[in-house]
Amino acid sequence: MDGVLANNKLHYLNYYFEESGVRLDEENIFGLNENDCLPDKTAVSRYIHTPGFFRTLPVSTDAQDVVRELQKKYDVFVVSAAMEFPHSLLEKRDWLDEHFPFITWKNIVFCGDKSIINTNFLIDDHVKNLMTFSEKGLLFDAFHNVHESQFERLKHWKDVYRYFLE
Amino acid sequence: MDGVLANNKLHYLNYYFEESGVRLDEENIFGLNENDCLPDKTAVSRYIHTPGFFRTLPVSTDAQDVVRELQKKYDVFVVSAAMEFPHSLLEKRDWLDEHFPFITWKNIVFCGDKSIINTNFLIDDHVKNLMTFSEKGLLFDAFHNVHESQFERLKHWKDVYRYFLE
Repeated sequence: MDGVLANNKLHYLNYYFEESGVRLDEENIFGLNENDCLPDKTAVSRYIHTPGFFRTLPVSTDAQDVVRELQKKYDVFVVSAAMEFPHSLLEKRDWLDEHFPFITWKNIVFCGDKSIINTNFLIDDHVKNLMTFSEKGLLFDAFHNVHESQFERLKHWKDVYRYFLE
Repeated sequence: MDGVLANNKLHYLNYYFEESGVRLDEENIFGLNENDCLPDKTAVSRYIHTPGFFRTLPVSTDAQDVVRELQKKYDVFVVSAAMEFPHSLLEKRDWLDEHFPFITWKNIVFCGDKSIINTNFLIDDHVKNLMTFSEKGLLFDAFHNVHESQFERLKHWKDVYRYFLE
């Protein structure tokens, strides 16, 4: 969900601008770890613990259209490692209701460790989640995973469309 | 979680007593469907949509002790079909933190459809969840499943202990 359906990168940069007045862009965080990608190394951790952060995430470009298309051929589940942040649970549920109302509650999973998930594919921006997944793992491109080469990479949602539907 | 770690039956009867002044006991609801087990057929649905209901559920007898023992030999996950009731998400997370603090957030899953769960065993009080599970399903005894005979039945948590640890 984060970094795949939702554009966390943009949200971090916007929060940082609000807080510091400094406008960073993608190049400034390219290749850095997600947790300490900002000049203030504690900022990301503070933002993700801030009420409202997860409720106001921007949607990734083309995510809505492509998920809707995928649903015609696949049983699509949204799986989020949300359990670490209890306040995010309702925010994420409400966010999905707003932006992906065509995904039923039956197909939403909030968990901790994704190794418990039994699907044929997993699209994730974190290699650690793909490593414990037994079926086909696909890496969704993100600023923090540019140096990873273990998994097939999907650059954006149009790439997801091509992979599964063309 | 509901009906396995938590004693929903007792909670329904207590809520009904609070509301109606009528004290029913187990025999009055034995063999009935969970959703309309009370004389007021809308009561259970109303209770489970009431804020606080899931946060105040009583813990099932012996559940804490047995889960703690199971953890010594097994990787125990709590899987709850909580997604239908968004307000229950945080309540269930807080309830687990209070009563099962030894279960880490990494091993908690809130989902809709449990068919996505990849474990070796599933202990559940609802046959519908066991039916879509591909590994060993075990039916946890409940007033609403007394007529079911498709799955091996565990009568109570001491039975779980016997099954997995003796």
